[in-house]
Amino acid sequence: MKSNIGLIGLSVMGTNLALNMADKGYKVSIFNRTVSVIDEVMNNTPHNNFLPVYSLRELIDSLEKPRKIMFMIKAGEAVDKLIEQLLEFVEKDDILIDGGNSYFKDTIRRKNYLAQKGINYVGAGVSGGEEGARFGPAIMVGTDENIYPAVKNIFEDISAKVDDEPCCAYISTDGAGHYVKMVHNGIEYADMQLISEAYLILKQIGKLSNDELHEVFDDWNKSELESYLIEITSDIFSVKDDNKSYLIDKILDVANQKGTGKWTNLEAIDLGVDISTITSALNGRFMSTLKDEREKASKIFKKEDINVNIDKKELIELVKYSLYTSKIVAYAQGFKLLSKAQKTYGWDLNFSKIAEIFRGGCIIRAKFLNDISNAFEKNKNIENLMFTDFFLNQINKNISSLRKLVSMCALSGVSIYAMSSALSYIDTYSSSVLGANLIQAQRDYFGAHTFERIDKEGVFHFDWIKSLNK
Amino acid sequence: MKSNIGLIGLSVMGTNLALNMADKGYKVSIFNRTVSVIDEVMNNTPHNNFLPVYSLRELIDSLEKPRKIMFMIKAGEAVDKLIEQLLEFVEKDDILIDGGNSYFKDTIRRKNYLAQKGINYVGAGVSGGEEGARFGPAIMVGTDENIYPAVKNIFEDISAKVDDEPCCAYISTDGAGHYVKMVHNGIEYADMQLISEAYLILKQIGKLSNDELHEVFDDWNKSELESYLIEITSDIFSVKDDNKSYLIDKILDVANQKGTGKWTNLEAIDLGVDISTITSALNGRFMSTLKDEREKASKIFKKEDINVNIDKKELIELVKYSLYTSKIVAYAQGFKLLSKAQKTYGWDLNFSKIAEIFRGGCIIRAKFLNDISNAFEKNKNIENLMFTDFFLNQINKNISSLRKLVSMCALSGVSIYAMSSALSYIDTYSSSVLGANLIQAQRDYFGAHTFERIDKEGVFHFDWIKSLNK
Repeated sequence: MKSNIGLIGLSVMGTNLALNMADKGYKVSIFNRTVSVIDEVMNNTPHNNFLPVYSLRELIDSLEKPRKIMFMIKAGEAVDKLIEQLLEFVEKDDILIDGGNSYFKDTIRRKNYLAQKGINYVGAGVSGGEEGARFGPAIMVGTDENIYPAVKNIFEDISAKVDDEPCCAYISTDGAGHYVKMVHNGIEYADMQLISEAYLILKQIGKLSNDELHEVFDDWNKSELESYLIEITSDIFSVKDDNKSYLIDKILDVANQKGTGKWTNLEAIDLGVDISTITSALNGRFMSTLKDEREKASKIFKKEDINVNIDKKELIELVKYSLYTSKIVAYAQGFKLLSKAQKTYGWDLNFSKIAEIFRGGCIIRAKFLNDISNAFEKNKNIENLMFTDFFLNQINKNISSLRKLVSMCALSGVSIYAMSSALSYIDTYSSSVLGANLIQAQRDYFGAHTFERIDKEGVFHFDWIKSLNK
Repeated sequence: MKSNIGLIGLSVMGTNLALNMADKGYKVSIFNRTVSVIDEVMNNTPHNNFLPVYSLRELIDSLEKPRKIMFMIKAGEAVDKLIEQLLEFVEKDDILIDGGNSYFKDTIRRKNYLAQKGINYVGAGVSGGEEGARFGPAIMVGTDENIYPAVKNIFEDISAKVDDEPCCAYISTDGAGHYVKMVHNGIEYADMQLISEAYLILKQIGKLSNDELHEVFDDWNKSELESYLIEITSDIFSVKDDNKSYLIDKILDVANQKGTGKWTNLEAIDLGVDISTITSALNGRFMSTLKDEREKASKIFKKEDINVNIDKKELIELVKYSLYTSKIVAYAQGFKLLSKAQKTYGWDLNFSKIAEIFRGGCIIRAKFLNDISNAFEKNKNIENLMFTDFFLNQINKNISSLRKLVSMCALSGVSIYAMSSALSYIDTYSSSVLGANLIQAQRDYFGAHTFERIDKEGVFHFDWIKSLNK
């Protein structure tokens, strides 16, 4: 009996995904470049549906046709190398599947390269980390529409389920799956930054203890903020290191990043989309790493009085609705980037479906995503998530809280990168008049860059210097 | 008699630069790919020191050795093509000079490529637009240190002068000149965005007329804000279109951008440097282009009462010192990016000198740059411009104004992207404690990403789920 699928790359992610497939009844040929790892897997986590293979030749021979070969290896050159090696063995109509964190432009390039050779290519964004890989990730599939049926069943079977719906979907062609996964990660950064700001405000202004913070986040997890990240945040505040002191207070406030958050921001700048709340999360991490400089600055920069005259309960409410409103902005920005991307790269994205699959497996899984999915379902061609009835109402209901909180933090000196950027985004987006007419006047003055007018059609240049007799 | 230099590319920039050189007594061979342009230049702006040449062969033969050939052509492939063509003619020790807006990584690549062939390469950032090119630009030179003397005289002679000092300097090797020019452009974006926000606040909250705005900017131009951009802003408010209505009120508030501002931001994200105030200027332009969406949002988003109870004079002072403080932040971010770049690309940058040459020719020329130059002169290895005595004092003196203004705009809904980001930057940079410990706890919880501790050395992982009996 031939295997249904081959899996190359037996790191924890790869092994867990193979176990997940095997659990669902798929026979999986497993292979790893360093072959000793194959035996380790067979010893440590054996499975009846595993077939260990020790060469690419053996892998190829073990698979039913058209062959499905998935790799979970380090993004970058390693993927190109593996593809070249596989090209010696694969046949027309075989399907190569990259389940790693590949850069979407690489996926587009590889897809086109392999298409010339009659080999099919799937770029699958797999979200959910090790736990997700083992028991149900979210899977975002980019490939030709006629290829999707060949991988649909296995991906749906192994994916997370929410309300019996698999968190797996066909996204669009070539790099679309990896793109959506990338934007998901950008949104994840923003979600985490916003929560950390909520924490900072409650701690610094509200003087909440860890026990109180645990309670607050626990309450919030029963509200519209219900989500995995809020849940684990509540957990985190309850953990004591050695049964005496809270672990959270012992952790250094320096947050690193691993690349995909960067990609989302580079992409937004390249496509001309403002995702400033997501960017502020990346900048927040950059700034966190300057611990020594921050210590130094904290000693010599003028400090404000952080004691704000506000009732603790009122503050908690302000923070809650500020967090919620800012979260809407971060997601609106992420989906706006997707919207620009589909025009740029020729994809056809179903935003409602994308929000739906984020509900399981993913770190950003949340009740909130149901609302996004419903909002986009009703408004397929809406320019901005904030224009949907539901979220417009939420913003209009809660914006005053965000205003008060940003104002309070501005006066007292509490660092809120993401929340203040969210408010700026709302205020800029809803300003029919900005000061950009002055920028255009300046550009025309010093560089003859021209401008448009509000009172007539056309492109104009004015000789400012001459008119001023300068 | 041979020509001292050859100039290829007779657009307005190229022609003006050639005229500038010719005025200073240099004999210039001028060439353009479309040769009819050469005759046009000779007809329209003839010069005794111009030698028109009609082929690269003729150009080469007309030049003294080692030949200096400067090109002012469109950045990108055209430069590579021209270099290949020139390689047929040039000899060892000849010097090719790219004075265009090339991407610094292209300049590094070209420099290394030509070095193999014994040809010298200079990447010169030329700032100041058409007017600067004609009568004195700022010139930032990247090349091998031993090559600089060959171009020093001509570049110093044609450059702008401030206090008799030429606004031209050797920056460092290969792409350093183009890099500094790129960051200059990023800072220029921020400068313009900040001024446009000052305008918006004075107009929307202060209800200032254009006449009043003209006066305010005219006053500011006699203060620490004295600069070319403030000066032309004052001018702009005085210009009437048809002797009846102010032109500024007829210009559409949609500001475009041409690429180098983008590069600065992509680079900052890539190197992990927070330049959020500069980024907000780019985002401000992106958002300005969404005019239709902004109109729509302005009608359905909840509006705040923009009538703030504040004395007009007090508001003008608040805006002035907020603008000034935010400007410090934007420049601090730009120089911080340069600081990271010199480590990344192996350059040796003199920040004091760089600030000095920005004082002439450039759009961002300003009295302010003297202060920056002096501050860096006294503190060569300072981590942040804001740590220098002068600017630290300025920030501590003026930060309360920025706090009040950001708070006021947050409450009244006036869009201030750059100013609020500047305040966030200061507050984040001067927070010895941020909420990033929570982010690290989350990352360790869901992805075993590990964390550092404040009470002991090392890298730690904690089994959160197990400890919670989940």
